[in-house]
Parts: sequence; structure tokens; C-alpha cells
Amino acid sequence: MKIGTKDFDEFVKEVQAFHGNIAPGVVAGGIMVDLAIKHLPPGILFDAVCETGHCLPDAVQLLTPCTMGNGWLKVVETGRFAVALYDKYTGEGMRVFLDAAKLRDFPEIRAWFLREKRKEDQDMGMLLDEFRRAGGGIFTISPVRMSPAFLEGKKRKKSPIRICAACGEAYSASLGNPCPACRGEGPYVVEH
Amino acid sequence: MKIGTKDFDEFVKEVQAFHGNIAPGVVAGGIMVDLAIKHLPPGILFDAVCETGHCLPDAVQLLTPCTMGNGWLKVVETGRFAVALYDKYTGEGMRVFLDAAKLRDFPEIRAWFLREKRKEDQDMGMLLDEFRRAGGGIFTISPVRMSPAFLEGKKRKKSPIRICAACGEAYSASLGNPCPACRGEGPYVVEH
Repeated sequence: MKIGTKDFDEFVKEVQAFHGNIAPGVVAGGIMVDLAIKHLPPGILFDAVCETGHCLPDAVQLLTPCTMGNGWLKVVETGRFAVALYDKYTGEGMRVFLDAAKLRDFPEIRAWFLREKRKEDQDMGMLLDEFRRAGGGIFTISPVRMSPAFLEGKKRKKSPIRICAACGEAYSASLGNPCPACRGEGPYVVEH
Repeated sequence: MKIGTKDFDEFVKEVQAFHGNIAPGVVAGGIMVDLAIKHLPPGILFDAVCETGHCLPDAVQLLTPCTMGNGWLKVVETGRFAVALYDKYTGEGMRVFLDAAKLRDFPEIRAWFLREKRKEDQDMGMLLDEFRRAGGGIFTISPVRMSPAFLEGKKRKKSPIRICAACGEAYSASLGNPCPACRGEGPYVVEH
């Protein structure tokens, strides 16, 4: 099986290097992204959305030009294990999800996916064998259209920069005044 | 100048390959992440937080084991151009921000950072020269402690999986019932 231009085992090595371990979710994600790309019209510029922040963003970042930092990849948390790639101009695209109804012959994938087994009880060799055997067969793919609200949210222009009167740091003026961190929304313990 | 184990120019090439273009924000981010790592106690396991989703997450993903998909990297949007790396057990770490007060001798960086120039008017060669010359000198670094609320939020266990009665897909049961997508929170136009 190929994932993008790579052999399955080569992709698994890249998952290990980027993600830090061979997470089944990134391996599954690789097959999903590959499937979606194959179903898009060739040559279009596409963006990506993951419906969970777990694992899937890394598959997208390994296999497409879309990253978190360049804004072509977004996470919209629906809790479903799904990824969509869509034409960035029309919003038309393909969505792929791991389909629990198709896992009867893949008990190790099923146990991982439905969280029926603890991580330490998973058999990675068996999992990878099942992914290799399953290929695209455990996923469901269908066309989607991105909502105008979602596309509008992505188009927002970069706001002017303001120096926060409270902390003295530059920040996006559109986020209010003072900056969100000085309104208590930062991730740190603030010491006075 | 070195960024991690790489020469500056080699890092810039990696930015181009991963991010899709030589974004000044990812180049600056590389220097910031490198600075933060050098100020952490050696050998600790660290996590990362970016205070903006623009560019900085890609610098973290290029230079550390922290990715969006493995959960070791989070974005908390304060709109400030800052990144913090912190000990994942104690929450103690180092925060680095690009300091507008230190940009007097770096007019091209200043114009980019404060959005005083349109993208098409930026001189990439001059920008990179200034980053090379500035090194760590345009940043301010200080120790931080992550808030208990932030650390608690990260520790949340993975929830059980439920099949949504509305769409039939598996999703994280903790997100409510039916799944968020079936409550209208998904990114697609839903067709009936």
C-alpha cells in the first residue's frame, strides 16, 4: 500500500519521527488524507479541516502543504475521527471518516478506535498489519461543501498591531483592549 | 547563527519546505524556540504553548518533539507573538516574545512585525539579513509558571467513544449528545 508517494512502512517511519511515536491515529489519518486527495480534482489548491485535534492534524501536516502555522489547516472539534480537504475557492471537497461499521474484520483497529483496550494492551504489530490489509476499506468518503460561516471566518484579514498599555507587548488590536493575556485569559500564573 | 543544530540558512530552507514559504514569523519563531530551549534545564521533558496560531506553531513543530497532533503543543490566543516551553510535570518554563522596543536598528523587521508594510512591499533578503544580524537581541525572555487551570485542561483523559444516534459516526462521548456536528457546530453545509 502507498500513502501519497510513500510506501506504507516509510510513512510509518515519518509518523514516528514527527509525532514522536507510531500513533494508530496518525497512521489511519495518513490513509484518510491519501484517499481524500485521490478523490479531489487534480491540481486544485486545497485547505484542510480536522474534526479532532488528536493525531489527525499531524497526518495532514505530513502529507499536504497545510499546516497549523500557515492557516491552511484548521481544527473544528466535533469529536468525530474525520478529515476534509476542500477547494479553497469554492469550498467543495471530500470528507473521509473512519467508519466503525466497517471494522468487523479488523478487531485490533476496532479495539483501538472504540477505546475498548488500554494503550498498553494494544498490539502495534497487529494494528499495523490490519491497517495494511484494510487500506481504504474501513473508511467512508463523501463530498462536502464548507459552510459560508466557516469560509468567512478563515478570510478575516490580519488586524493592525497595537502595543498593550498593560503589558507593553505588541498584539492583534482586534482582540480587544487591553490584550487577552492582561484580561486574565493567558495560560500563566501572573505574579504581581 | 545556529537554530537548534541547524545553520540559519538550512533552517530557512526547512521553513520553506514545511510552511510553504519563507514566512518571517516562522523564522523569528525558530530563533525564539532555540532561545527558550537554551534557557531550560537540560534533559527535561517540555511542552509548548504559542500565544498566536500564526506562524509560531510551525517553528515549534520544526524544532521540538511537540506537535498539534500529539498534544504537546497548544495555542492559547492572546494575540501576542510569544512562545513558552515548560516542564510538563512542574509547569515551570521560559517564555520568549518578540520585543517591539528592541527593533530600532531593524527597520525591516519592525515594518513587518507592526504591519506597517504590505506583504508585497517587504524585502525578504533584507528581512533575513536583519534576523541573522539580530539573533536573540530582539527578543525578551523570562521565566513563567503555567496556571493550574491550563495544566488541568491538558490532563483531561480521553473520553469513551459513542456512536452518535443522529449521524451514526463514532465520537467522543464527553462532547454531548448528539455529537457537536449534529448540533450544528460542524464546518459543513448540511444537506437534507
